[in-house]
This record gives sequence, C-alpha cells and structure tokens, in this order.
Amino acid sequence: MKYTVYLSGEIHTDWREKIIAGAQAQNLPVTFTSAVTDHDASDAAGDVLGKETDSFWRDHKSSKVNAIRTKLMIEQCDIAVIRFGDKYKQWNAAFDAGYCAALGKSYITLHSEEIIHPLKEVDAAAMAWAKTPEQIVEILTYVISTK
Amino acid sequence: MKYTVYLSGEIHTDWREKIIAGAQAQNLPVTFTSAVTDHDASDAAGDVLGKETDSFWRDHKSSKVNAIRTKLMIEQCDIAVIRFGDKYKQWNAAFDAGYCAALGKSYITLHSEEIIHPLKEVDAAAMAWAKTPEQIVEILTYVISTK
Amino acid sequence: MKYTVYLSGEIHTDWREKIIAGAQAQNLPVTFTSAVTDHDASDAAGDVLGKETDSFWRDHKSSKVNAIRTKLMIEQCDIAVIRFGDKYKQWNAAFDAGYCAALGKSYITLHSEEIIHPLKEVDAAAMAWAKTPEQIVEILTYVISTK
Amino acid sequence: MKYTVYLSGEIHTDWREKIIAGAQAQNLPVTFTSAVTDHDASDAAGDVLGKETDSFWRDHKSSKVNAIRTKLMIEQCDIAVIRFGDKYKQWNAAFDAGYCAALGKSYITLHSEEIIHPLKEVDAAAMAWAKTPEQIVEILTYVISTK
Amino acid sequence: MKYTVYLSGEIHTDWREKIIAGAQAQNLPVTFTSAVTDHDASDAAGDVLGKETDSFWRDHKSSKVNAIRTKLMIEQCDIAVIRFGDKYKQWNAAFDAGYCAALGKSYITLHSEEIIHPLKEVDAAAMAWAKTPEQIVEILTYVISTK
Amino acid sequence: MKYTVYLSGEIHTDWREKIIAGAQAQNLPVTFTSAVTDHDASDAAGDVLGKETDSFWRDHKSSKVNAIRTKLMIEQCDIAVIRFGDKYKQWNAAFDAGYCAALGKSYITLHSEEIIHPLKEVDAAAMAWAKTPEQIVEILTYVISTK
Amino acid sequence: MKYTVYLSGEIHTDWREKIIAGAQAQNLPVTFTSAVTDHDASDAAGDVLGKETDSFWRDHKSSKVNAIRTKLMIEQCDIAVIRFGDKYKQWNAAFDAGYCAALGKSYITLHSEEIIHPLKEVDAAAMAWAKTPEQIVEILTYVISTK
Amino acid sequence: MKYTVYLSGEIHTDWREKIIAGAQAQNLPVTFTSAVTDHDASDAAGDVLGKETDSFWRDHKSSKVNAIRTKLMIEQCDIAVIRFGDKYKQWNAAFDAGYCAALGKSYITLHSEEIIHPLKEVDAAAMAWAKTPEQIVEILTYVISTK
Repeated sequence: MKYTVYLSGEIHTDWREKIIAGAQAQNLPVTFTSAVTDHDASDAAGDVLGKETDSFWRDHKSSKVNAIRTKLMIEQCDIAVIRFGDKYKQWNAAFDAGYCAALGKSYITLHSEEIIHPLKEVDAAAMAWAKTPEQIVEILTYVISTK
Repeated sequence: MKYTVYLSGEIHTDWREKIIAGAQAQNLPVTFTSAVTDHDASDAAGDVLGKETDSFWRDHKSSKVNAIRTKLMIEQCDIAVIRFGDKYKQWNAAFDAGYCAALGKSYITLHSEEIIHPLKEVDAAAMAWAKTPEQIVEILTYVISTK
Repeated sequence: MKYTVYLSGEIHTDWREKIIAGAQAQNLPVTFTSAVTDHDASDAAGDVLGKETDSFWRDHKSSKVNAIRTKLMIEQCDIAVIRFGDKYKQWNAAFDAGYCAALGKSYITLHSEEIIHPLKEVDAAAMAWAKTPEQIVEILTYVISTK
Repeated sequence: MKYTVYLSGEIHTDWREKIIAGAQAQNLPVTFTSAVTDHDASDAAGDVLGKETDSFWRDHKSSKVNAIRTKLMIEQCDIAVIRFGDKYKQWNAAFDAGYCAALGKSYITLHSEEIIHPLKEVDAAAMAWAKTPEQIVEILTYVISTK
Repeated sequence: MKYTVYLSGEIHTDWREKIIAGAQAQNLPVTFTSAVTDHDASDAAGDVLGKETDSFWRDHKSSKVNAIRTKLMIEQCDIAVIRFGDKYKQWNAAFDAGYCAALGKSYITLHSEEIIHPLKEVDAAAMAWAKTPEQIVEILTYVISTK
Repeated sequence: MKYTVYLSGEIHTDWREKIIAGAQAQNLPVTFTSAVTDHDASDAAGDVLGKETDSFWRDHKSSKVNAIRTKLMIEQCDIAVIRFGDKYKQWNAAFDAGYCAALGKSYITLHSEEIIHPLKEVDAAAMAWAKTPEQIVEILTYVISTK
Repeated sequence: MKYTVYLSGEIHTDWREKIIAGAQAQNLPVTFTSAVTDHDASDAAGDVLGKETDSFWRDHKSSKVNAIRTKLMIEQCDIAVIRFGDKYKQWNAAFDAGYCAALGKSYITLHSEEIIHPLKEVDAAAMAWAKTPEQIVEILTYVISTK
Repeated sequence: MKYTVYLSGEIHTDWREKIIAGAQAQNLPVTFTSAVTDHDASDAAGDVLGKETDSFWRDHKSSKVNAIRTKLMIEQCDIAVIRFGDKYKQWNAAFDAGYCAALGKSYITLHSEEIIHPLKEVDAAAMAWAKTPEQIVEILTYVISTK
C-alpha cells in the first residue's frame, strides 16, 4: 500500500524538508505533495496568461492556476499535514483544512502552543495536533508502517 | 422559494446586523444563520460537560460543540457570506470558506482592500467579493428577488 | 407533491411565458425558476461591487454573481427545460445542460429541427426533445399530473 | 504522479497536436484523452448497430455511442482543456464544460478574445482562460512539474 | 414526519389500491407515488413529441418521458414496494429494484412463492419480502407509526 | 429552523423521556425519532411476513424490517444522541454511531465514566460526550436556540 | 488506459466467449468481469456457511455471497454489457441495469428484436442496444481504441 | 484484479493469521489490512504528541491517531471481515460495521452462534455470516477466484 500525504501551509521554515527526510529515513511508502512553495513563482502563476494591472485580478488569476494543483492534490491525498507558523495570516492553510474536513480527509495540524486558541476550530476537525515535524514523522510511521 | 444564508466570520463589528436589516428592508425571503457570536459563551460551550484544566482540551471540547451547529448550518445554507476583519487570525472563517468550497456552496467574501493578497486563495473560490454589507444586500437582492 | 422546473436558455422569444401560462391553465403544482432574463441587468450584475475597465473581468464578475442564482436553481430543480434558438451561441444553455447531465437531473430540450445536428450531444443526454412550448406543457402535464 | 488531461472541443485546427507536442517536449507525465475527432467516424459511430432513416435518431444513436467514451474520459481526467473556435456552435464543448463544473473538475478554456462575451458563463466556472496552446502548455508545466 | 412510498411494478391486479386503502385505514402519514399505470397512456407518452414509424424509437421516446417521472419518484421516496406478478417479464420492476439498491433506498418486494428462485438477487437486496398487500400495510404501519 | 434528533441505543432506562421532556421545557423546535423501543415488538417485527423456525433468520428478518425505520431516521436526522448503558452488548448503538460517522452526521454519546475505554473509538468520532440526559438537553439548547 | 467491462445476464449461450475472443482479436486493453456463471456453483454459493432447509433462505444466502462479487464488479467497471435471452426471467440482469443506471455507469444492452417492448425501460437508460456479440465488439473497439 | 480485505475486530485469537494463511494457500490476489492489533501500542498511539493525565483525553488522542489508519483502510477496502469474540464489548468492531454499511462496503461477520441475538442488526446489514476463519477463506476464494 502506498500513501500520498499533502503538506499544506507555511512556507518560511523547513518543516516540509524535515518531514520528507524523516519519512525517507523510515522508508515509508509515501509520496509527498505540496502547493508551489516558491512565493514569487506562485504569485506569478497566472502572468503567462496576460499581465493584469489590477492587483486583485492578478492575484485572482494566479490563485486559480495554483488551485488547479492544490485542489487535485487535496482530493488525491490520503492524509494532509497542515502547518501554521506563528506569524502571517495563512488563510490558505485554514482554507485547506476546511476543504479536507468537508471531504472527510484526515489531517494533522502542526503548530506551536501559542496559537492554540485561534486555531481551535481547525484543530477540532483534525485527527491530531503535532508541535514538531519529528512528531509528524512518528505519527506517519505508526499509522503507515505498523504491522 | 426561501433561502438560507449563513453568515460566517468576524464578530467585532455589526456587519451581520446591517445585512439582516438590509434584507428585511427589501423583504427578501431569507433566513440568516450564524455561529454563536457571543465570544464568551462560545468559548464556554463545552463547559457544561465538565470543566477542563488543560486549555487545549477546553477549546477542543467547546469547538466541537460549536461545530455541531456550524457544520449543520453550512450544509443547509444556500449561500454563505464570509467576513474577514483587518485584525485577528479568523482562521475559522477561512476554514468555513474551504468547507463551503468543497461542498460546492456559493459564498461571497466581505473584506477591505487591505487584505486582498493574503485572502487570494479564499477569494479565488468565492463567487463574489464585497467591501461593504450594503453591497452584500444588493447582491442578495439581485440574486434572490429579480423576476 | 410540488415540482420545480428550471427554464434555461434563449431570452429573445416568449417561450418561458407560454410554458408558464400553459402550466397554470392546467393547474400544475409547479414553481418555475430561471436565470435573470433581463440582458442588461444580467450583464451588469457585478457592477455594484465596483466597476471594471477590462471587459473580461466585468463579464467574469457578473457571470459569477449570476451563477450564485443559476447554480442553486439547477441543483434545486426537479426538471429542467433547455431552450436553444436558431441564432446566437447560447453556450450558457449548453453549459446548463451538461451541468444537469452530470447531476443526473432530467432535462428536456426545446429547439427547432434546423439545429438537430449541432445539438446531438446535448439531445443525447436529454430525456426528451420538444419543438414547441405547447409540447413542453403537454409533457409536464403528463409527467406531473397523471394519476 | 501521473496526470490525465481531457481535450474537448473544436476539431478543425491543430490545437490538440500542439498541446501534446508541447507537453512531450517538457516531459510532462500526462496522458491526453479526447473524443473521436474524425468527424465522419464520429457521426457514423452508431451505424454498426443498424442504419437509421431518420437523421435525428442516427445522430442520437451515434452521440450516445460517443458519450460512452467522453463521459468516461471526463470522469477520469484530472484537468480538462476546453477549446472554442470562432466559428460553429460547438455546443458539445460547452456541454462538457458544464459537466466538468458539476463534477468539480478543473478546466481551462482556450479561445480568442472575440468570443469572451458569449463564453462568460463558461469562463466564470473555469480555472483559467488561455488564448494559445502554448499558454496551455505553460500552465500544465507549472501545475504539474513545479517542485 | 411524512413518508413517501413508491409503488413499482405489475399493473394488472389491484395491489396498489389495496395498499393505499389499507394505509388510509391506519391513518398513516404516507403519500404514495407510482409510474403512470394506464398501459396505453404509458406506451404513448412520447407521441405528443411526434409520431415514430420505428417501434423501437417509439418505445424509446415514451420510456424516457416516463422515466422523467419514475426517476424523480424513486429519488424522492423514503421506501419502495416492488411488485412482481407471476406472469410477464416485468423487467422495469427489477430495474427499479436495482436503481433503489444502488441509491441505498429501502425496498420491500411483493410476490408469490412461485417466483422466489428467479427473484433471489432482487430479494437479496430487499429489506423484506411480502406475499400480500395486507402484509405490506402491516409492515408500513409498524415502521411508520410505532411510537 | 426545525431540527430532528435521533435517539439511539439503550432501552432499559428513561433517558429518552428525560431528554424529550427537557427539550419541551425549553421549547426547542426539535422532533425526536427513535427505533421501536418495545423490545418484544422489535424482536417480532418480521413475524407478520411468516414465522421462522431458525432463530437466526427470525432475527434477520425482524432486524431488516427495523432497519427500514432506523436507516431512514439516521439519514434524515440533524443530530444523533447515542446512549450506552453499563450492561449489555448494545452493538446496534455502536453500529449506528459508525453509520452516522460515515455519513458525516454529528452525534453525541451518552454514557458513564465506567465505559470510557471500550468506547474510545466511538467517542473519538463523536462531537461530544455527555454523562447525563440533562447535559444533552443543555447542549441541544445551546446549539439550537442561542441567538 | 485500461478498461474494465462487466458482462451481465444470460448464461445459456456463448455470448461472453464471443465478446472476449473478439476483443482479444482486436487487442483491446480490456479486462472482462462477470458473475459466477456456473449455475449450480452460484446456487450453492452460501452452502459452505451452513445448509438451509428453507429454499428461500438458501437462495438468500447464496445471492448475498454472489452479490459481494457482482456489486464490486459493477462499481469498478467502466462499461457494462447486459444480455437478455429470449427465454427466462433474467431479473438479475434488469436489476444490474438499474444498478448501473443509478451509478451513472454506461451500459449496452444485447438482445433480439423480439423483446424490445418489455425491455423498453432498460433500453431507455442504456447507451446503446446491440443485437449480436460482434456489434458489441465493434462498439468497444470504436470507443476504446480510436485515436 | 487485486482485492483489499480489511480485517476488523477481536484481537485475542489468531483468526487474522488463519485467514491470511488460508488465502495465501489459495494464491488469492488479496492484500489484507487491519488496525494496529498490538493492544498496548494502540492505546499509546497518541502519547508521542504529549502525555495526558486525564485518561479520557489519552484515549481520545490515541483513538484519533488510530482512526487515521482505520478510516483510510475501510474506505479503500473492497470487502471487510468483522470479527466478534464471545467476550468483551468490541464496540469498535460494531462501529466499523456501521461505517461499512453506510459506505455500501460489503462485509462478512465472523462470530459464534452464542451471540446471534445481540448482533442481529450488525448481521442484518452484512453480506454473510461465518462461524470459522476457514469459511471466510472459502467465501473469499469463491468470490475472488471463480472463473
């Protein structure tokens, strides 16, 4: 059995790399997927279709191009990990969590104790809350590879 | 035909009241629904089931009790309005937006121009973006009551 | 038992009025729904949210506002009637037909013999093809009111 | 991860070949699917089941045989590209777009600026609008192969 | 709570009338629905749309008009009763049973002991098998009105 | 807005009556539904269709007749309350919980602290755990009637 | 792309073998599936679980064991072929057709002209009607292998 | 064709091993999946995310981690076998049965005659009831490998 794990959210720290490396160290049969995490590339995703002068429409066009990818990845994943850093709005991460919840996809949140309260609705629909990438790796290892 | 409109998000300004009053002034056949917007009551929603010493679990318990209500309201609404103020995390609002998107529920966002960029993914899946409650009322009036 | 019938497509002739009058003459327990058929109002549906200089985005914004209404009406109808005139592209009507087909909603097409060939895919997924509004009324009467 | 992209619509220009060649040049892991694009073969798809004298029924029979293929391809695709030329009705393309929209399949439209207005409802439910096959290839490359 | 019960199958005996009368005698809050049971009217359902010379297409056209009604009734019913007489093919009744099964609609079969063996697959997906209309009334009464 | 609450599980104490009385005292707009709770009547539900000598088939036949009712009630409820007493197997209650979970129906468990451990999987998918009928009434009142 | 085609219905002639051989001759990438077609083995499918004295329950038990297989095969097929011979009830074939129709699975019927009228509802929901296995092979070849 | 069979329930006897060995002896193309059956490991599944002092929350956290695995396995299985021993509550097994039933997954129960009566609702929604692992192997062999 092979698993697909979608990694959603914060793009300023190396939590994705840590999870991927940890999973590889455990030989987990997991393919990780993710939105495009290069911030500038992501913001410019729609530019190839024609430049926009209005920033709302530029964002709109790029977000929809990005959504072709993320919608598919969420729908095809077996498990999602949704990461919130202590800074920034990260509304896309909460949006992904709601999307997962409505589809019945299991997701695990990854965030510090500082933001428990504002994340309470997101955590309430999660299957687990982890504080570190290492914990995520341990949970994935348990869930996926225990005989 | 009667409509149900779910009002999600920010609880510190009177945007809900303005929309409801505007819809009544237009005699729209709309029932508005909403999460419990009394902040303290909402945080304490699970206390009746037993006090928790750990704040994570208190939040967890209350959020799940609140989710009995909000999950039902989202699933039963015809249209959602999702409001983001300029302050606070409001991850529950973005979560609701993702939930609506996955269910194929039409939603309209209500927020200022200041936060276009961080809301781009949420707006990309919305059917409209309004800046004022008055615009929401105009849109609802057009959608619901035009012959 | 009450029925909801969605009337989709061409807006330049009085086929809607004829069907509605015919159904009333037969006392059918039917509520008819429809997109906003005032062409100018429909094109301007999004203007209240802010004027657009780019015609693509003006169309885009208005179409999405209109889609809040039509998506709901299609999802809530029991039967759809989809009308194609001999002129104009009317891609929205074919779009509605595809939407109905995917949802498993029964629809009846209403068009002349001149356009059988270009409509063959749309007719192939229809439950019936009528040439006149009077035939639509007869079919609805049979389907709805036969004891 | 492998992707399936369904190419729907106009059959008189070589847009399909251009997209397929472009994707191969980028080594994209994509399988392209399509309705039978040989016009005469498509019109005759049902003839093997017995000749029809009435052209409506000949079209009907052939369209249903073709729909066995296209329905399956739409349901199994990850992304659709829907092409409208400036001429012809191409109602089947708009039908496919509506079908995709109702299933929640992401689609990209491919058409010139001349027909923005009649395609506004179809574009409103699309994830992107491209003017050239080259843009489609760029979008697919971004969506599928960005690390 | 009100119930809708769909009565499918054989049209040559008065089993429908007996069930309806029995339910009325018990004051059950049930609306009964049914295909058009007038054999000639049913066969001619599509004639209003134009006469067909080929009997296959006449049947096809009429069956689809009838299916607008029966598809809706099955999808909206709470319980179905599916009756097989000892004579005739009655493939439409078995078709309705399969349709109910796939939708997860509870159905009760009504037939004599003579045809247990050919109906074994249909009975295997049923919630009950009754031999008389009186038994159907008793089951409905128990299911619907027991406090 | 009216709510339907399904009461599942243990039949030897008066927890149903207490919840119903409590909800009435609060004037909650709730209709309560339930399996047939008369044990003997429930065991005999299928007898009208013919006596069985084999106790497995008698149980089977009666359980399916009862399932016509319970399946419908679960699918139509807004919220379920699932009660486990300290004695008996009550596998039907756990079955109902699993059924609710798969459908995405919110349910609240009602049981003592003694059986937390064996119910951990059932509680993990619940929205709340209550120890007394009074707590259930408080939760319902909060969820349903808070402005 | 690989296809799965489910072959349902009559078991007294060699239509399955002809279709399979024809598809192999065309090198179609098709896996064919089917109910157990050994009549005695099928009737005895449940006997291993304990002998039944009542023939209704023997049939019931065996049919459910067989349904584990057929339900899965229908749900996993891309296309179904449903064969009716001129003799026998073959209600299971019509049941399978209804099941396919409700799931939106394309099916092709295979039967002689003699039984057009009793099969009209089954044919109305089919994508094609063939009279010979050779026609089925031609249709599959066209649908599956046309470039 | 490959099959996935989910083995749910009792963990104190070697019924899983017997079924797996029997299936291997028959060369069945089956992958078996299961919850983590090491009782202590399962109870401790959530401990890595932080120790809990309250046993309800420890159970809750571990059960949700386990549910990431079991939910996925149930949703991905083709057939489930659900085992009840004569002792213990085993509410998780009945929960899994209800979950399967709601998803339309075929399941087979495995239990002794002693507990027919309390399991009647669970058996009523099952496709078969077996008393021994050997019978399960025979049923799987018949269902999966009969030509």
